[in-house]
Amino acid sequence: MSKNTPLRGIFTPNIVPLDTRGEIDEPELRKYVDWLIERGVHGLYPNGSTGEFTRFTVEERRRIIEIMADQTRGRVPILAGAAEANTRETIKACEHYHSLGVRAVAIVSPFYYKLTPAGVYAYFKEIADNSPIDVTLYNIPMFASPIDVPTVLRLAEECPRVAAIKDSSGDLPHMMRMIAAVRPVRPEFAFFTGWDAALMPMLLIGCDGGTNATSGVVPEITRKLYDLTLSGKQDEARELQYRLLKLFDAMLFSAEFPEGFRAALRLRGFSTGTGRQPQSLVQQKELAKLSDQLQCLLAAEGFTDQPVGGCPVGDSVDSDQVARIVQTVVGELKKRGMA
Amino acid sequence: MSKNTPLRGIFTPNIVPLDTRGEIDEPELRKYVDWLIERGVHGLYPNGSTGEFTRFTVEERRRIIEIMADQTRGRVPILAGAAEANTRETIKACEHYHSLGVRAVAIVSPFYYKLTPAGVYAYFKEIADNSPIDVTLYNIPMFASPIDVPTVLRLAEECPRVAAIKDSSGDLPHMMRMIAAVRPVRPEFAFFTGWDAALMPMLLIGCDGGTNATSGVVPEITRKLYDLTLSGKQDEARELQYRLLKLFDAMLFSAEFPEGFRAALRLRGFSTGTGRQPQSLVQQKELAKLSDQLQCLLAAEGFTDQPVGGCPVGDSVDSDQVARIVQTVVGELKKRGMA
Amino acid sequence: MSKNTPLRGIFTPNIVPLDTRGEIDEPELRKYVDWLIERGVHGLYPNGSTGEFTRFTVEERRRIIEIMADQTRGRVPILAGAAEANTRETIKACEHYHSLGVRAVAIVSPFYYKLTPAGVYAYFKEIADNSPIDVTLYNIPMFASPIDVPTVLRLAEECPRVAAIKDSSGDLPHMMRMIAAVRPVRPEFAFFTGWDAALMPMLLIGCDGGTNATSGVVPEITRKLYDLTLSGKQDEARELQYRLLKLFDAMLFSAEFPEGFRAALRLRGFSTGTGRQPQSLVQQKELAKLSDQLQCLLAAEGFTDQPVGGCPVGDSVDSDQVARIVQTVVGELKKRGMA
Amino acid sequence: MSKNTPLRGIFTPNIVPLDTRGEIDEPELRKYVDWLIERGVHGLYPNGSTGEFTRFTVEERRRIIEIMADQTRGRVPILAGAAEANTRETIKACEHYHSLGVRAVAIVSPFYYKLTPAGVYAYFKEIADNSPIDVTLYNIPMFASPIDVPTVLRLAEECPRVAAIKDSSGDLPHMMRMIAAVRPVRPEFAFFTGWDAALMPMLLIGCDGGTNATSGVVPEITRKLYDLTLSGKQDEARELQYRLLKLFDAMLFSAEFPEGFRAALRLRGFSTGTGRQPQSLVQQKELAKLSDQLQCLLAAEGFTDQPVGGCPVGDSVDSDQVARIVQTVVGELKKRGMA
Repeated sequence: MSKNTPLRGIFTPNIVPLDTRGEIDEPELRKYVDWLIERGVHGLYPNGSTGEFTRFTVEERRRIIEIMADQTRGRVPILAGAAEANTRETIKACEHYHSLGVRAVAIVSPFYYKLTPAGVYAYFKEIADNSPIDVTLYNIPMFASPIDVPTVLRLAEECPRVAAIKDSSGDLPHMMRMIAAVRPVRPEFAFFTGWDAALMPMLLIGCDGGTNATSGVVPEITRKLYDLTLSGKQDEARELQYRLLKLFDAMLFSAEFPEGFRAALRLRGFSTGTGRQPQSLVQQKELAKLSDQLQCLLAAEGFTDQPVGGCPVGDSVDSDQVARIVQTVVGELKKRGMA
Repeated sequence: MSKNTPLRGIFTPNIVPLDTRGEIDEPELRKYVDWLIERGVHGLYPNGSTGEFTRFTVEERRRIIEIMADQTRGRVPILAGAAEANTRETIKACEHYHSLGVRAVAIVSPFYYKLTPAGVYAYFKEIADNSPIDVTLYNIPMFASPIDVPTVLRLAEECPRVAAIKDSSGDLPHMMRMIAAVRPVRPEFAFFTGWDAALMPMLLIGCDGGTNATSGVVPEITRKLYDLTLSGKQDEARELQYRLLKLFDAMLFSAEFPEGFRAALRLRGFSTGTGRQPQSLVQQKELAKLSDQLQCLLAAEGFTDQPVGGCPVGDSVDSDQVARIVQTVVGELKKRGMA
Repeated sequence: MSKNTPLRGIFTPNIVPLDTRGEIDEPELRKYVDWLIERGVHGLYPNGSTGEFTRFTVEERRRIIEIMADQTRGRVPILAGAAEANTRETIKACEHYHSLGVRAVAIVSPFYYKLTPAGVYAYFKEIADNSPIDVTLYNIPMFASPIDVPTVLRLAEECPRVAAIKDSSGDLPHMMRMIAAVRPVRPEFAFFTGWDAALMPMLLIGCDGGTNATSGVVPEITRKLYDLTLSGKQDEARELQYRLLKLFDAMLFSAEFPEGFRAALRLRGFSTGTGRQPQSLVQQKELAKLSDQLQCLLAAEGFTDQPVGGCPVGDSVDSDQVARIVQTVVGELKKRGMA
Repeated sequence: MSKNTPLRGIFTPNIVPLDTRGEIDEPELRKYVDWLIERGVHGLYPNGSTGEFTRFTVEERRRIIEIMADQTRGRVPILAGAAEANTRETIKACEHYHSLGVRAVAIVSPFYYKLTPAGVYAYFKEIADNSPIDVTLYNIPMFASPIDVPTVLRLAEECPRVAAIKDSSGDLPHMMRMIAAVRPVRPEFAFFTGWDAALMPMLLIGCDGGTNATSGVVPEITRKLYDLTLSGKQDEARELQYRLLKLFDAMLFSAEFPEGFRAALRLRGFSTGTGRQPQSLVQQKELAKLSDQLQCLLAAEGFTDQPVGGCPVGDSVDSDQVARIVQTVVGELKKRGMA
């Protein structure tokens, strides 16, 4: 794979399967990589938020990339999450991932401390000036210091290594403002949306692709939505975007992130293990209930059988119910400053 | 005009021209109504947020509707902002506007006090049960109690009078969730976006129209964007949406709302008078500077001459500059909990 | 009462009793005024947020002040809420209330639209320059445009008529910053807290008093807390502040504001009528349950009998339960951007 | 030092001095520990937010505790920040720090991902059930998932190892609600405030102490404020609290946290090195300007000479100026969802 492969299409931020001792399940991870590539995702994006990069140790984060790069063998480009404790450690990770042949790294804006735009700029500038590999900025303002439009533009102008941005804000006009500011000076700069709920409209206003958690569970749908949108099949694309929204909402809002995605991946036949964030008994019960709802949604798409108890007739899960769940959880997120 | 005219298209939330004493300038308002209709807006929406309904007295709000209904003479439907101090006063306004022949009223969710969903529901239920005229819910969470999806659905199910929602949140997946929840039970229920920055994608995912402040200044563009989008001319529509975004950002973010829209309307040849919210000297100077920038943007669209000092060559106002302005003001808005 | 009476002590933001037709219940309001004065509040504060000023018409707001000024007959100073639709209408209200002999007006920062500091300054400057009566700034950032420290200082420096600020943010260091900035240039400028939960500490760091909703229900306690704190009885004051916090939380967080205060006032023997904001059936049931809890709290303080069903032994309502209620509702408030 | 030393008084969250290569400067750190203990702080709190725990590697975090435990030699209790990537790693850290003889660990609530109360509970429960050493909950909602009152109470009831909470929200009624809920069931449970701006009032309503960043720079003042408050010298305490507020605001709000504290510590004679978060040129210039202002403030307290250029006559830095700085930066923080 040439290092100049354009960054484009659907990149999967993958869950990391764990074994019964809570360690990385290497065989299952390798199987998962193959499964994703076979189902048409354009690239892989390990150590993202869905991949719970903060819950692994430095050594584990490296091993995840090593396993996935080895298993991928250049079939698709890899965007490797490379954020570490500070710029020095992050640059070391960039160097290592470069030696493994990944296409680019993705680096989340500084988190915990919330930095000013000047601080965000200084952080990425130092990394970009020392990285041997293309850098994707990762803007996820619900979790980390926001990267504002003038900062993206300044980094794009000053740092040839900064080659793309992944934006998970879901804010469509914000994406348009970035594109309007950066494209004139860096036509090849790539824009990815991390917000599956708006994938079709984001592509229609000019995004190059998506790093979408749904593509780790239903890669067939996310990829098809991408293809339909790009080929101008607007009515079919819209219909599919509504179906994807329902799946996305169910997985995102019905459990502590990314437990909904983990539960759904299990329904697709993978042994995912239990996440590293402990779940209370109440949460475990809710997750079991959610799993049945997800199974109905996945069964309606033809990906699984219905659960033992069956599914509601007609619409597999009615919109009203999903609406109520989303509302409750969006409220919860807002309480915590997340939405 | 039949009372059953479907609610669809671009409705203009109009500024109210004031004379030198600060009173409603009736002749100018009548001239403005004609001008808007001639330029193709599908309907008028007086006493909205752009119309500064809270800064007029009860009597003035009524007079605005009376003048506009009289001048319109049924050429286009009117959506009349009807929120008053409490439900009893609001219902009286509904009755009066009904007697004037307006198509529907629009009622903003309770503001100042921020109500729970239960309170928002009870408020609209009482009004809808007593209104002789169709009611449009008005959701503008940056200013008023949010109307969540389950509440919209419940009101749509229980109240035949509730016929539409205007949503100014700019949140595209939220709009999709409302449409997914309500359309199956009320296929004719109308969805309007108040967020010009996302008009094209909102129409593409199923909105029936927009109540867009830009249409009060550049009705030619907002209307054309609507037509291009609906006729499937995607590339032209996208290009126009980017141009509208620049105008919208400049008018929305460069001055205390809605002063940017007032300044731009003046450039289109209307005598708008001075707004009722006092402006500090610093603000007045900034507004003069903004006015020149707006004039360059409007001149680039062919609507005005360039200002005396001329405009920057090439792009009338470069994207970088607009990006920086937007960022500063979005920041200001966030400080104040508005965005 | 001299117009120079210092602004100091506990001012009651009163609920307005309504009759069965929903109109102002004048006899009950007069009775309530006497009751409050007899129980020792230092002043009255009609047309505040607790008084639901936005839910009354212009004429009703005037009548409330007229009735209360007439009934008070100078026994205590009155701080009259005077915010109207725009500065012209507000100045008219200032003139009228001045003619009625009230001590000062209180004017909430512009709401609905959220203004910049420059806009907030311009608004108060115009009013203060034209008011014949002392003006109290009213900062309640959860509902209205925030008044920041530099703006308070600038208004204090430039406008002799601006004589006080009521701050309902509950932010103690913010209060200290205002005091530190303004006292050196305007030693007589008065600082009131509207956040009963922090009354004692606010007084200890230098506040002149409080405009506290609890004083409309348990004036005996709020007044006693003021006296104990000022006389240096720290342990007794602390103990009473904790009891007041429990009452405040129960009234503030257990129902849509100010329904909890209305329900409690009813328990003190007043015919309050039903508020003007409609309540759903669910809300009405919750309010009935709350009323029993409030009755237990008031019975524990000796102000009422226990409810028919009795109260929990020991602590009338256990802290854990109140904690859970508060948490739920603080969460709700945060969702709505209020806390 | 007995493991049962009560947790009480002022604990210093210390900056970690770095050498010219950016490595931990062990001799300077040892000198700093002695200096702090000699100036009267009651305890030390390494690996807190001021200590930039997230910007060090796992190995460095351990080494910081090892050096400080060795240097302290039991003279004062140590509260060791012990949060690692996941519960397993965190429990290992608890075990190691226990073996070093620290008094307790402090564990920040999960960050990056914002968890529900159920998730926060499950996280601390697993750690507390497996820790050989007392655990202090660390609530800092501006940076991490909030720990709400019912969760604190539940953990206090179920986990004997959970012995204290450090709360950096600065919300005084919230602190009172926690105390009211937990003290009846766990009388010895300790409450610390991390918000220096409200230290005196927090102590007056019942806090056991503070983990205050100012105590790392002006330990003399923070300690004296604690003593004055506890001995009932209210007027002197208030006066000192206002002076501490000015210092706190200047250090907290005038630069990216914790650069203001680092700059001030340098003025006290320590070689602090440069922080690990890169600073842009603009930021570096602002920091130099701030340093002069801080020097004036510290000179006014008698801790340093005035800077070469001298200080303003009278008040070393006038309150107005500090007010404007604070306002600007509080605004910045709010933009970023931090305040």
